[in-house]
Amino acid sequence: MADGTIGVGMIGYSFMGAAHSQAWRSAGHFFDLPLDARMTAICGRDRAATEAAAAKLGWHDVETDWRELIARDDIQLIDICSPGDTHAEIAIAALAAGKHVLCEKPLANTVAEAELMVAAAQEARRHGVRSMVGFNYRRVPAVALARKLVADGRLGEIRHVRAQYLQDWIIDPQFPLVWRLQAERAGSGALGDIGAHIVDATQFIVGDRLAGVSGLTETFVKERPLPSSSSGLSAGSRGGTGAVTVDDAALFFGRFHGGALGSFEATRFAGGRKNAIRIEVNGSLGSLAFDFEAMNELHLYDGTAGTETGGFTRILVTEPEHPYLRAWWPAGHLIGYEHSFTHEIADLLADLGNHTDPSPSFEDGLQVQQVLAAVVESAAAGSHWQDLPAVTRNAA
Amino acid sequence: MADGTIGVGMIGYSFMGAAHSQAWRSAGHFFDLPLDARMTAICGRDRAATEAAAAKLGWHDVETDWRELIARDDIQLIDICSPGDTHAEIAIAALAAGKHVLCEKPLANTVAEAELMVAAAQEARRHGVRSMVGFNYRRVPAVALARKLVADGRLGEIRHVRAQYLQDWIIDPQFPLVWRLQAERAGSGALGDIGAHIVDATQFIVGDRLAGVSGLTETFVKERPLPSSSSGLSAGSRGGTGAVTVDDAALFFGRFHGGALGSFEATRFAGGRKNAIRIEVNGSLGSLAFDFEAMNELHLYDGTAGTETGGFTRILVTEPEHPYLRAWWPAGHLIGYEHSFTHEIADLLADLGNHTDPSPSFEDGLQVQQVLAAVVESAAAGSHWQDLPAVTRNAA
Amino acid sequence: MADGTIGVGMIGYSFMGAAHSQAWRSAGHFFDLPLDARMTAICGRDRAATEAAAAKLGWHDVETDWRELIARDDIQLIDICSPGDTHAEIAIAALAAGKHVLCEKPLANTVAEAELMVAAAQEARRHGVRSMVGFNYRRVPAVALARKLVADGRLGEIRHVRAQYLQDWIIDPQFPLVWRLQAERAGSGALGDIGAHIVDATQFIVGDRLAGVSGLTETFVKERPLPSSSSGLSAGSRGGTGAVTVDDAALFFGRFHGGALGSFEATRFAGGRKNAIRIEVNGSLGSLAFDFEAMNELHLYDGTAGTETGGFTRILVTEPEHPYLRAWWPAGHLIGYEHSFTHEIADLLADLGNHTDPSPSFEDGLQVQQVLAAVVESAAAGSHWQDLPAVTRNAA
Amino acid sequence: MADGTIGVGMIGYSFMGAAHSQAWRSAGHFFDLPLDARMTAICGRDRAATEAAAAKLGWHDVETDWRELIARDDIQLIDICSPGDTHAEIAIAALAAGKHVLCEKPLANTVAEAELMVAAAQEARRHGVRSMVGFNYRRVPAVALARKLVADGRLGEIRHVRAQYLQDWIIDPQFPLVWRLQAERAGSGALGDIGAHIVDATQFIVGDRLAGVSGLTETFVKERPLPSSSSGLSAGSRGGTGAVTVDDAALFFGRFHGGALGSFEATRFAGGRKNAIRIEVNGSLGSLAFDFEAMNELHLYDGTAGTETGGFTRILVTEPEHPYLRAWWPAGHLIGYEHSFTHEIADLLADLGNHTDPSPSFEDGLQVQQVLAAVVESAAAGSHWQDLPAVTRNAA
Repeated sequence: MADGTIGVGMIGYSFMGAAHSQAWRSAGHFFDLPLDARMTAICGRDRAATEAAAAKLGWHDVETDWRELIARDDIQLIDICSPGDTHAEIAIAALAAGKHVLCEKPLANTVAEAELMVAAAQEARRHGVRSMVGFNYRRVPAVALARKLVADGRLGEIRHVRAQYLQDWIIDPQFPLVWRLQAERAGSGALGDIGAHIVDATQFIVGDRLAGVSGLTETFVKERPLPSSSSGLSAGSRGGTGAVTVDDAALFFGRFHGGALGSFEATRFAGGRKNAIRIEVNGSLGSLAFDFEAMNELHLYDGTAGTETGGFTRILVTEPEHPYLRAWWPAGHLIGYEHSFTHEIADLLADLGNHTDPSPSFEDGLQVQQVLAAVVESAAAGSHWQDLPAVTRNAA
Repeated sequence: MADGTIGVGMIGYSFMGAAHSQAWRSAGHFFDLPLDARMTAICGRDRAATEAAAAKLGWHDVETDWRELIARDDIQLIDICSPGDTHAEIAIAALAAGKHVLCEKPLANTVAEAELMVAAAQEARRHGVRSMVGFNYRRVPAVALARKLVADGRLGEIRHVRAQYLQDWIIDPQFPLVWRLQAERAGSGALGDIGAHIVDATQFIVGDRLAGVSGLTETFVKERPLPSSSSGLSAGSRGGTGAVTVDDAALFFGRFHGGALGSFEATRFAGGRKNAIRIEVNGSLGSLAFDFEAMNELHLYDGTAGTETGGFTRILVTEPEHPYLRAWWPAGHLIGYEHSFTHEIADLLADLGNHTDPSPSFEDGLQVQQVLAAVVESAAAGSHWQDLPAVTRNAA
Repeated sequence: MADGTIGVGMIGYSFMGAAHSQAWRSAGHFFDLPLDARMTAICGRDRAATEAAAAKLGWHDVETDWRELIARDDIQLIDICSPGDTHAEIAIAALAAGKHVLCEKPLANTVAEAELMVAAAQEARRHGVRSMVGFNYRRVPAVALARKLVADGRLGEIRHVRAQYLQDWIIDPQFPLVWRLQAERAGSGALGDIGAHIVDATQFIVGDRLAGVSGLTETFVKERPLPSSSSGLSAGSRGGTGAVTVDDAALFFGRFHGGALGSFEATRFAGGRKNAIRIEVNGSLGSLAFDFEAMNELHLYDGTAGTETGGFTRILVTEPEHPYLRAWWPAGHLIGYEHSFTHEIADLLADLGNHTDPSPSFEDGLQVQQVLAAVVESAAAGSHWQDLPAVTRNAA
Repeated sequence: MADGTIGVGMIGYSFMGAAHSQAWRSAGHFFDLPLDARMTAICGRDRAATEAAAAKLGWHDVETDWRELIARDDIQLIDICSPGDTHAEIAIAALAAGKHVLCEKPLANTVAEAELMVAAAQEARRHGVRSMVGFNYRRVPAVALARKLVADGRLGEIRHVRAQYLQDWIIDPQFPLVWRLQAERAGSGALGDIGAHIVDATQFIVGDRLAGVSGLTETFVKERPLPSSSSGLSAGSRGGTGAVTVDDAALFFGRFHGGALGSFEATRFAGGRKNAIRIEVNGSLGSLAFDFEAMNELHLYDGTAGTETGGFTRILVTEPEHPYLRAWWPAGHLIGYEHSFTHEIADLLADLGNHTDPSPSFEDGLQVQQVLAAVVESAAAGSHWQDLPAVTRNAA
């Protein structure tokens, strides 16, 4: 990094790998960054597939063993896009090797693993080695604007947070038993996969954290056809069925330390909702509403505006004054899902170049894991309330 | 009217008759009015049908000759809900007999008839006999609020008005040749029936009038099955077809005296749009948008609010501070189409009781007819521009 | 009722009294009903105020003692619009006197009272005396259509129900301690007042009932200024403050007998949401969404339609084929909040005339009370799960 | 191109240059293309600025004379992103030199120039040299889907097209007299800049062309401060004012050859509308609606679906089955404005690799210019109807 460049090695090349690659390719073309990222190598177990991915995604070299990737001198940052059960081992090794780490969410499949990762991150931080967990929705401009408006006091004291993350991709009972439906690989179902995002996003927006939760989980379809191969979302079956060992849906509510109530729902069984993240916040002075299906909009209610012309204002978050938008197109020209990753990479590179710690940290990732674990515990205990560990309130 | 009551006689008992009856029955229960309306008699040619309507709609007595209705001593106001080709004769006779008149829109089927009606209204006005034309959409609270915001200067100088009135009830070519599709009865098609409403509503909102127009009309389905009977919208056919002699759709644009441009479209061939009135106004300081399919809402853009939180505010027009709403339910409880008539009747009774002229006047109705006639002339002249008569700008 | 008429006596004349009166006045003008309702007398403690109300609302006579009202020979139906703490005594007495009863929701302030009322209703039913509880939102056409579509199997097996009832009228901490904020009068806060509606409406739509719940309640503002008078929502204060003894907000989730998960939220602290009832239902074949702020719309997702043109269809529920709509205006002409009461009265009169039991019954009202009580119990027990009494599943 | 690569030279590096560059960089990473584009050189008059742009946008080399760019052996395609008054000369020279050309819209500032360009394109086409005009909105997936649905007959016979392109960036009278407001540079104002897009997009969607038009144009602010420099949109002024010589807004309506009516409006004075392209199409069997502010959605009304559940279906155009979407993210993950250019480049490279002519052609661009010219002529002739040249109906 002495010459203003940073070598990046990425592990994994499916959905998240493709999204991260577009971000690594694009960030420097839109943002003025102190570091120039080089897409040094991509790592996967299958050499031929990985080489094809490298060609497609723009990586210069290929590794088939993540330990080799970490060991390379021309790589200073490891971007972990592999499944959750691999995060802890890779991240800890990379940090120990002095490599910065960007780790996709969820940070890990268990709280215990996440705690080890935090310990490794804290140790590394003392040596200037930095780490970040990839809650990309924080970088959707409307979400970042929501946080700013709350921080500016525009909503007053926060009373209510309600958030839903709704999908429908396994609504068909014949959809096969892919790895995301197996606890040993995925750790969790809807709760960990998408519930994690709304826990992080709402805590980020209100600048506060959950103090306790009560939850309920459900697996609607308990048995599914075995997939024809172990890879991905292929719908074919090799015959026979297996048990679904993760949740299809999770509902929970909680209290934030500041007194707000939170209501959460994550499901893969909401027909017609493909990737619907809906967040509302009500405060003593105003309210906010966001829907990812209209991700360039934020709706703001200013309770101090008087009744004649009061109401929710639909802010088209495309103005140069809005977070991240100065880098993009004139007002009114929308951006998309992938830009949240471009912003994430741009912020990460800015932090690394400026020698500051990026956010969200591994500690933030651990805290989200603790919330999810408390939901699972509550669900197992007749939905009884579970207090969360006392943590420093969100400072970022 | 000496005793604080006013006897009402209504002519016609189909769609408009039913809507007006609900308004006559309801206005006094919600508004504090100086006059108590008595639903004295309803008039139709078929005695049995009219008696049934009287029973259903709440009228005390029945007449089968409108001249008898006008002649009654216990009636001081004539409410004309019969087809447009009857308006002039009835209204002129009623006014001459010293009866106040509420006349449904369009005021008449031709400008010439409307001019005679205006002359009669002006003569009657000198004797304290008052008249009103029924552009009920002015009394939708969101429309009334729109006018108020423009009058308050919230939009600055008006630049653009765009309005559409979209329906689809004759989209099926087998829909029969009902009287509304015959020029000799209806006078006009989409242009006079629904185009009239958006001409009036936009002029009302911006407080200005069209100075000239250019137009285009079209009859998509030129021949239709003859209806099985002469009554109403019945879809049966008695065999044979006849020529459609009115327009199915009309497009026109124009300039307002104050310099704003207006764009208008009225059609009965917009599939899926049942009664869609959409109005937008852009001014130098802000904009307004209204859609009758969400008639309890008005969208306001305040161009002076700054870009961070600027945007269109969705005003739920249900607050006691909003026009007409104090009479109704708590905030957030919607009202419907029929309430525009209740407001119309309440305003009319207030004006009569207070000895002031109601609005819109017959002069207003004539001016709308002149606009429609100019559109027809323009359409017949290669869409060439037609200047409108110089009129006093809208003072109401 | 021998002559085809029925005498009605109503108790209470504020918000609900006004809404019911408009319904009593209007139902017969739009629906063909076997009974003609006479608005015989209205009852309130203050004679002058009640006489003013009678004049305003269209009641022929006045009583100041509800026992006198019940005793009148010319009254066959008692409509109870007084506060919840009066419901049980009046309803039980009226039923014992052989009078049909329409009782506003909530049925009672406690489960114990509601059980007594059910016993009285069951006894009366054996003598042809009928009773109904006023969950008016069932009669919003879009809600009735939702129920029909579920019953028709269009959604398949129900997986998720999520419902919110959001208001903001006490968000200001200086809003006084009106009776609705006092447990001894109101019984409950947001939970009983508005939570009751979404429990009933969702159970009605899915045709199933909650089997158990876990809940959380909160009182954000614990002390408020004493009101200047005991009457209504007046904002003045007579000095001093008092404790708020009901909930400001309630969150709960539950399971339906058929396996669906339900998520519920009721609050009076959602700034900018005036009367927002939002209901979504997800099934194995499709989904439904409703928002009372657009009460003439229902959104339907048909999961069998294929991906190219699949999505939520915005049904404008104004067609003659839709529930209740044949009585009203042409397609595209909206109706409002009050029409839900007109439909309720029309259905009630039809049932009485046809000698069938109206719905929702007192048993239905009791079951809703049981759900609310279970939420309160759960909230008091660390949100621990509370099973609900086994009841016959909703047959209506 | 023998080796499967194609060298690209781009002229211009402001808004369009940046958008095209992102497309050139990205297309090959998402689409399987027969040609690999090399971003060989970028051309601008100011060497330092052009070098900075090359570094920022990812171009390998720099030219300061477009003739030099065309002359390079390592370039086979010229991408023209410079202002409209330069298009004709560059494009004709490039085609004559055997270089494929992608030319931003409008094709030229005048019909005469456009005709020369078409002649050059036709001559070049005979030698396998291809050309395309950059109406990028055709490649918004929802717009492409709209065209497909019309072509599939889902809308039946087209009756109405209505389109608006609304912006507000010069609403402030103090906004300076930038080159886009000067006729000699820009050729046209709102009409040519944004009106051109809705003419092309609607003709593309309905697969038909305008046969005649009637129009009106307006310049609301006739004098503006001179800009402090000649470059771009800078708001500073060097003192003094100058005349605005282009239109601020244009309204027009027309008839398509197939009988549909079209209504169009383009303005830069619609406060709060930043880049609002709204298109509706009504046919005998159904309707479509699109709004660029929600560019990932298309609303379809199927008039054959019956009234109980009929209505506009909001299609979230993010499914793999939708145009262009298989290349991107899972369903429900939105794309943005820039992707329309990525699709344009991908289609262009596919056509060049497959030796087919890309679309829209220069002929298509000329035809749009003819429409715009006819609007101007009509506006100058009292809005009198102007027939358009008989052209082959849109076959693409």
